[in-house]
Amino acid sequence: MTTTDIPATMRGVIMHAPGDVTVEDREVPRVVEPTDAVLRVEAACICGSDLWPYRGVQPVEDQPMGHEYVGTVVEVGSAVRDVKVGDFVVGSFCVSDNSCEICTSGFPSRCVNGGFVGGTQAQYTRIPQADGTLVVVPGGKPEDPEVIASLLAASDVLGTGWFGAVAAQAGPGKTIAVVGDGAVGLSAVLAAKALGAERVIAFSRHEDRAALAREFGADVVVAERGDEGAAKVKELTGGLGAHGVVEAVGNQVSMDQAIASCRPGGHVGFVGVSHGVSLDGQSLFFAEVSLLGGPAPVRRFLPDLIDRILAREIDPGKVFTMRLPLEQAAEGYEAMDERRAIKVLLEV
Amino acid sequence: MTTTDIPATMRGVIMHAPGDVTVEDREVPRVVEPTDAVLRVEAACICGSDLWPYRGVQPVEDQPMGHEYVGTVVEVGSAVRDVKVGDFVVGSFCVSDNSCEICTSGFPSRCVNGGFVGGTQAQYTRIPQADGTLVVVPGGKPEDPEVIASLLAASDVLGTGWFGAVAAQAGPGKTIAVVGDGAVGLSAVLAAKALGAERVIAFSRHEDRAALAREFGADVVVAERGDEGAAKVKELTGGLGAHGVVEAVGNQVSMDQAIASCRPGGHVGFVGVSHGVSLDGQSLFFAEVSLLGGPAPVRRFLPDLIDRILAREIDPGKVFTMRLPLEQAAEGYEAMDERRAIKVLLEV
Repeated sequence: MTTTDIPATMRGVIMHAPGDVTVEDREVPRVVEPTDAVLRVEAACICGSDLWPYRGVQPVEDQPMGHEYVGTVVEVGSAVRDVKVGDFVVGSFCVSDNSCEICTSGFPSRCVNGGFVGGTQAQYTRIPQADGTLVVVPGGKPEDPEVIASLLAASDVLGTGWFGAVAAQAGPGKTIAVVGDGAVGLSAVLAAKALGAERVIAFSRHEDRAALAREFGADVVVAERGDEGAAKVKELTGGLGAHGVVEAVGNQVSMDQAIASCRPGGHVGFVGVSHGVSLDGQSLFFAEVSLLGGPAPVRRFLPDLIDRILAREIDPGKVFTMRLPLEQAAEGYEAMDERRAIKVLLEV
Repeated sequence: MTTTDIPATMRGVIMHAPGDVTVEDREVPRVVEPTDAVLRVEAACICGSDLWPYRGVQPVEDQPMGHEYVGTVVEVGSAVRDVKVGDFVVGSFCVSDNSCEICTSGFPSRCVNGGFVGGTQAQYTRIPQADGTLVVVPGGKPEDPEVIASLLAASDVLGTGWFGAVAAQAGPGKTIAVVGDGAVGLSAVLAAKALGAERVIAFSRHEDRAALAREFGADVVVAERGDEGAAKVKELTGGLGAHGVVEAVGNQVSMDQAIASCRPGGHVGFVGVSHGVSLDGQSLFFAEVSLLGGPAPVRRFLPDLIDRILAREIDPGKVFTMRLPLEQAAEGYEAMDERRAIKVLLEV
């Protein structure tokens, strides 16, 4: 085990119950498995999915929060080879060895030795399968805080939006529609455009989000929802529907809207964690669209995303419309819950 | 309009109500639209999907039956260019102009000028969009009745099984599982093997069907169903699941079994017309499989299938385990309903 000076305690976010978020003293996590690494977190953030337990839609009790992170390695286990103490790293919210058959087929989010990262809204965090989960940022910690914010976005929302756009087969000549104007939806707009989509249609009825969608490359912003929203997409595509659609909300209305907005033979990528969604088999059969969703295999995209961010080709950190010190995390949850912020970055 | 000697009346199958099938005198259909052709049907057959109304699962009243066919063109409309009187043709059960944006993207089953063929269990049938829907068999009507049977199979069951295997991304190095041992499922076994799958796992607990599955290339036949069937596939694939799965039944158990048999990142092609199937969004999200189903775009595959059949590379006509004269159609429905025949060919 290689290590550096690590304190015994730290500050970290705990959600005790829905709506009850505090920052508390906690023990600093240390290497447990030989494949672990411990990071000093440089920046963390609050995820749209953290709002499910915050709003009581998902059970929660005294849970250390956070699964997005950039940080500096302070300790590695004896089996860690590619990541060294002092490296500045980004990692996926999914743990992956990046070498099993599922990982190498492109789905590190479902690694056979995988799991989920947790507790990154804190000063330190333990990352399992460090060699597979983490990617070292070339050149070390960037000086520009905007670049750090963008790298942080890559850890989940950008990577998830990117997966949605890839699943929707965004590319040259394609019209891609994006359902959802949260940080993931906006990231999907950016991704679709970066992947070469000819036209990106965003759905939004909030001026701040619509503005960011446009900045990220949306050619059209549609205010209508549900069947009316889908009808609008058909109207914009000669009656056929979009070639591909990204669903980035996770409820029944958004899922139905996504499928209805897609042309037969098109592709729907659904990356909003499904809550209470049910799909009728016969409707899906006659929609005749390809459907792929799930926890995003962010690790697959990370090296490319890091390159694009360092080259300033993409600026996904703009989804962070509020920045707060870690100590004020509760205020960040409130702001996201009330939709006053698209996404909140926590300065650690 | 070009035409040849066509009688005024013919014999054709009518389903009056569930379980009530007769062969009756009917008017011979003639060209209506300039894009139509009329065929003298050389062979037709009974489809698994014809059993839904036969069993009362789907409403039916005095309906001319049949949507699979091979035949000789006897009349064409003024706008028909590529198909001529005297040509021996195979066509899809879906009408397609084969030139619209959806057709050319590979989904003629959802042609913007499309629809469904009907009433082919008869001596004559009218085919809309003849140039797009029909494919001329090179060399004219084959002498070998086995080849004619195989061409007839291409019209739906083979084309549908093929689509399922393509949607499941069957190919070299892949393990493909097939749920359903009806004619479509068996055709999917043949298709998966013809497309180069390394290993094909068929599900069957009927010895005649299992034997044909083996003849079509199944390497393993699994008798277990549902969760146990899926567990067996995982056991056979190092705990991961099949790379791709074809669902060829259309009910809840088969759909759940198909998804559960597939590895994360794998592909499920579902070609059994869904009846009463509901998919839980969250389960599908965490299954993380690609899902594509719908009426098969048979026309996309027909030229290739015809070539393979004429070269005797594949023998899909073996799904016809019973042959009856058209007049005995009712007996054929009964035999399929009682699973005494896998598929019944009607000699016209």
